[in-house]
Amino acid sequence: MFTAMNFTGDSLRLIDQRRLPHEEIWIEGQDLETVAQAIENMTVRGAPAIATAALYALVLDAKNASFRTWADYRARFFQGCQRLQATRPTAVNLFNALNAVRQAADTWSSELPKAELLPLITAAAQALEKSDLETCRAIGEHGASLASSAGSMRVLTHCNTGSLATAGYGTALGVIRSLYTQGKLEHVYVDETRPYLQGSRLTAFELQSEGIPYSIQTDSAAAYLMRYERVDMVVVGADRIAANGDTANKVGTYSLAIVAQYHGVPFYVAAPRSTFDPLIPDGRSIPIEMRPPQEITEHGGHPIAPRQAQAKNPSFDVTPASLISGLITEYGIIRAPFGEGIQELLRKGCQRS
Amino acid sequence: MFTAMNFTGDSLRLIDQRRLPHEEIWIEGQDLETVAQAIENMTVRGAPAIATAALYALVLDAKNASFRTWADYRARFFQGCQRLQATRPTAVNLFNALNAVRQAADTWSSELPKAELLPLITAAAQALEKSDLETCRAIGEHGASLASSAGSMRVLTHCNTGSLATAGYGTALGVIRSLYTQGKLEHVYVDETRPYLQGSRLTAFELQSEGIPYSIQTDSAAAYLMRYERVDMVVVGADRIAANGDTANKVGTYSLAIVAQYHGVPFYVAAPRSTFDPLIPDGRSIPIEMRPPQEITEHGGHPIAPRQAQAKNPSFDVTPASLISGLITEYGIIRAPFGEGIQELLRKGCQRS
Repeated sequence: MFTAMNFTGDSLRLIDQRRLPHEEIWIEGQDLETVAQAIENMTVRGAPAIATAALYALVLDAKNASFRTWADYRARFFQGCQRLQATRPTAVNLFNALNAVRQAADTWSSELPKAELLPLITAAAQALEKSDLETCRAIGEHGASLASSAGSMRVLTHCNTGSLATAGYGTALGVIRSLYTQGKLEHVYVDETRPYLQGSRLTAFELQSEGIPYSIQTDSAAAYLMRYERVDMVVVGADRIAANGDTANKVGTYSLAIVAQYHGVPFYVAAPRSTFDPLIPDGRSIPIEMRPPQEITEHGGHPIAPRQAQAKNPSFDVTPASLISGLITEYGIIRAPFGEGIQELLRKGCQRS
Repeated sequence: MFTAMNFTGDSLRLIDQRRLPHEEIWIEGQDLETVAQAIENMTVRGAPAIATAALYALVLDAKNASFRTWADYRARFFQGCQRLQATRPTAVNLFNALNAVRQAADTWSSELPKAELLPLITAAAQALEKSDLETCRAIGEHGASLASSAGSMRVLTHCNTGSLATAGYGTALGVIRSLYTQGKLEHVYVDETRPYLQGSRLTAFELQSEGIPYSIQTDSAAAYLMRYERVDMVVVGADRIAANGDTANKVGTYSLAIVAQYHGVPFYVAAPRSTFDPLIPDGRSIPIEMRPPQEITEHGGHPIAPRQAQAKNPSFDVTPASLISGLITEYGIIRAPFGEGIQELLRKGCQRS
């Protein structure tokens, strides 16, 4: 399985996901700012992956800084957290990971020397990476239980939620991997996912390299496939899930959910506990990142629209809970109505962490 | 206004719509086969435009052929019609135009010399071109009557239905032009329209050159705009409309109609009488053209997916009549339920032609 990142101790190596699948170029992040910019410009993307990258950026910063004790470094540490938090506004995993490490930091002794601090921050990053992988595998197993019988499932997905978007295995793509491993998968329909083409570039790349049967379609052709072919289930990832189940995910998810409901196709969201935001009652409060119009009006630096063209480029949208059949988490599948099930999940998550 | 084609007497000059807006390259069609291939490879596209191009291809063939009388040429003429009819399967305007000229041909005297035949075929092509333009203007006027008040309308459209897709002015884009001329238009939301990007390349180009306010979005972001901004109306063109109102149009139209209904946004189809196919009771019988996967997996000859990637590329889809608020024709707006109104339209169309 391809991984999005590799921490060497001295640097965070990130595969440039903007150039996959045709160029395999690794970025060597040796300081916090380089990693922050890689998150901003989508060299690394995917809600769980950017959370892990951010914690490794904190490790690099602590390593690079000259200080004697935690008291000398504390201010810079929290500034670094702020910088990383400001990279992308929609996915909550990043904020949850930074909050957890900040809470831990509040317990650190002022006298803690650099030599003892560095292993603490490193351990936090490694623990997140490890738990992310385990979480994805658990999500995959729970999701695969939705298959009615062997070799039966034709699944449609949007964006990339695989090993490139997480510490490995994937969320929605983890469900697809588990279905395949259990012999329950017939075909994957991959939305190309404009404008960044995470589907045709990244998801297709992961499926191709593992021999999982798939085909790509334009995002707007999903409705055609539901009508003229057979789609048994849609499964997507998430960037933030509100307390009522409203889900922010890659732009196009909302449209897909409406179309799935129209055709009676079950629509599932696969996401770990860390994607839930208990502080947000519903989707109206989730900030939606607007990205540069050039992502739509240019391709590979070449214009594909009039030079003066304006474009609106929301990077995410919010799918209301009413369109979602179930939320596949590492603890099991939460079914509508979600309020109660999400509260229970949040309690479980607290007990574990 | 940019035009898709220009008949010189010796050739049909076609602007290469695959390379707009950044390269303005004209193809010189001097024989039927060149024009047929230009229709197949989408150098010229748009249901009304390809119908006119096909009739000019017949003019070129008659001009190029060596024959004395219609009796000598008749077989080749009908073969030429067959060749043109086989270029693209979904849009019915092409078939209607060819059928009309074939019916006229059945009345031509066997003794008719080439010198008299050529003006007959030329007149048929010119008449179609002229009536197409008048028809578009009438559609525009009827459509503009939907505006509630001055400067009020924010309209979303899909694909290109403008002067490049017709003999001029356009169908759905004709409605937008008329709204703008009457001071009733506030903004046009342009679906980029993957994979061929007719929206960002062609519709944006037409709107930009006339100073009509617009912005482009990815096709899957239309739902976002309906929820977070204000969309007063969707208007699209059509490639074939069945007797019950089911409408085949560019892939993505069906998805857009479902999304519009979910948000309570009126969804209109703008099309001339020649787009209606009375022989087809409903959308299930409309053949959907599958185009090469490379249109999705490559961009400008460069791969944007794994090299071995499969892709499903339906070029059209069918929007059921139940999702359509009204059909804007040159005779007026037909409202649901459509069966009766379409029958009346077909009678009017027969009287006129």
